[in-house]
Amino acid sequence: MTYCVGILVKEGLTMIADTRTNAGLDNVSQYKKLHIFERPGDRMITIASAGNLAITQAVLSFLSEGIENPETGQVETIWTQPSMFKAAQLVGRAIREVYRIDGPSLEKSNAGFEITMLLGGQVAKGRLRLFMIYRQGNFIEATEDTPFLQIGEHKYGKPILDRAITFSTSITEALKLGLISMDSTMRSNLGVGMPIDLITIKRDAIAHDVLHRIEPGEPYFHDLRERWSAALRAAHKAIPTPPYGG
Amino acid sequence: MTYCVGILVKEGLTMIADTRTNAGLDNVSQYKKLHIFERPGDRMITIASAGNLAITQAVLSFLSEGIENPETGQVETIWTQPSMFKAAQLVGRAIREVYRIDGPSLEKSNAGFEITMLLGGQVAKGRLRLFMIYRQGNFIEATEDTPFLQIGEHKYGKPILDRAITFSTSITEALKLGLISMDSTMRSNLGVGMPIDLITIKRDAIAHDVLHRIEPGEPYFHDLRERWSAALRAAHKAIPTPPYGG
Repeated sequence: MTYCVGILVKEGLTMIADTRTNAGLDNVSQYKKLHIFERPGDRMITIASAGNLAITQAVLSFLSEGIENPETGQVETIWTQPSMFKAAQLVGRAIREVYRIDGPSLEKSNAGFEITMLLGGQVAKGRLRLFMIYRQGNFIEATEDTPFLQIGEHKYGKPILDRAITFSTSITEALKLGLISMDSTMRSNLGVGMPIDLITIKRDAIAHDVLHRIEPGEPYFHDLRERWSAALRAAHKAIPTPPYGG
Repeated sequence: MTYCVGILVKEGLTMIADTRTNAGLDNVSQYKKLHIFERPGDRMITIASAGNLAITQAVLSFLSEGIENPETGQVETIWTQPSMFKAAQLVGRAIREVYRIDGPSLEKSNAGFEITMLLGGQVAKGRLRLFMIYRQGNFIEATEDTPFLQIGEHKYGKPILDRAITFSTSITEALKLGLISMDSTMRSNLGVGMPIDLITIKRDAIAHDVLHRIEPGEPYFHDLRERWSAALRAAHKAIPTPPYGG
């Protein structure tokens, strides 16, 4: 299982991903799910992935090694895309290419072809953008009305984002809310686990601001979890008793 | 969609259910999902249902009209069961009977045979118990370690229960937490909606304590939602800013 969230606010973008991969409960590993393609001043692109690990790794290899563009005949990589929209299209093409190669065999054995990706960042003078790319290779984009996108085990961590995130939320507050959302998910699904990778990107910086891995036992995240738990306990205790009956 | 939760604590049992039924977004209706079989002093049984409405209604009709017990040849209803365990078995038999009649046609049209039920209550001198009955007709029971069971759209409302519910939680606190859980679910899934039905049953009373429908705009529930939202906002604002980077 996986949980990744991308939050695009006025000030910038944050992406947060766990690192647990499992094939059944008896086969649990750690893999990085937050991938960085950064050349400061030219492009700051980050990809988070959920789904089948073999598909994810194949897509990432295609993005680095290149895929032939059927219209121009040229081999294109994520480093050559002139905009985030073109980069999202390239990720979609890479997914379709992996599907062409591996999809039929996977489906024949009922394994399914499962992959979803978040693609965020900024290329040269383009806008800072955040996309969610589906297994079919098409995609949607975060907007001011809906400034966050989630992939993987998204439901446990959605209520706090629904309540608290708006486009005007600051980037540090967005990061904090993303970590609370991750904490809620980890508490309810064992398949989502530490360490946690995170990145923040300020609008028009075309470079990362923060790139950090939270290891188990890190004091800030431990404190955030404790404070959040304590605050929730206090919050429900402060609500009056239901007046029904009696 | 549906969300129902049953919480069994030392002091008693509470069950909470929404009332929205939909077949697609363009066909939304209101149906009671919390069903009461009460004869004070003899039995206080409540059933909450999630899944296909036709299956649910057929199961409830079988429970009232009776199903023949293949071992004894006698027709049994939920009113004749000598214990909660036997009542859970009867519900399972009713589900299997509906499956025998309707299952093949449903599966032929890819509609699926979807039904899950919560069965809670107490019969005569037996224990107060809470069961979750699956579409296959088998069931699990809530225990002191895991004192709540959910059916339907359960993920959005699970984190608060995971954090706050224990077997020693009071029944009024359990009801309040169940309502917070329902609120979180309604905010994130349009298919779960008001009014909300709730019941509380005190251990060994063999009668309901509270039986209430929360209509839209009811002051207590409105206040609970507002207070919970405000408390969550205050809680995340009170957490220090992440110390990463810069």
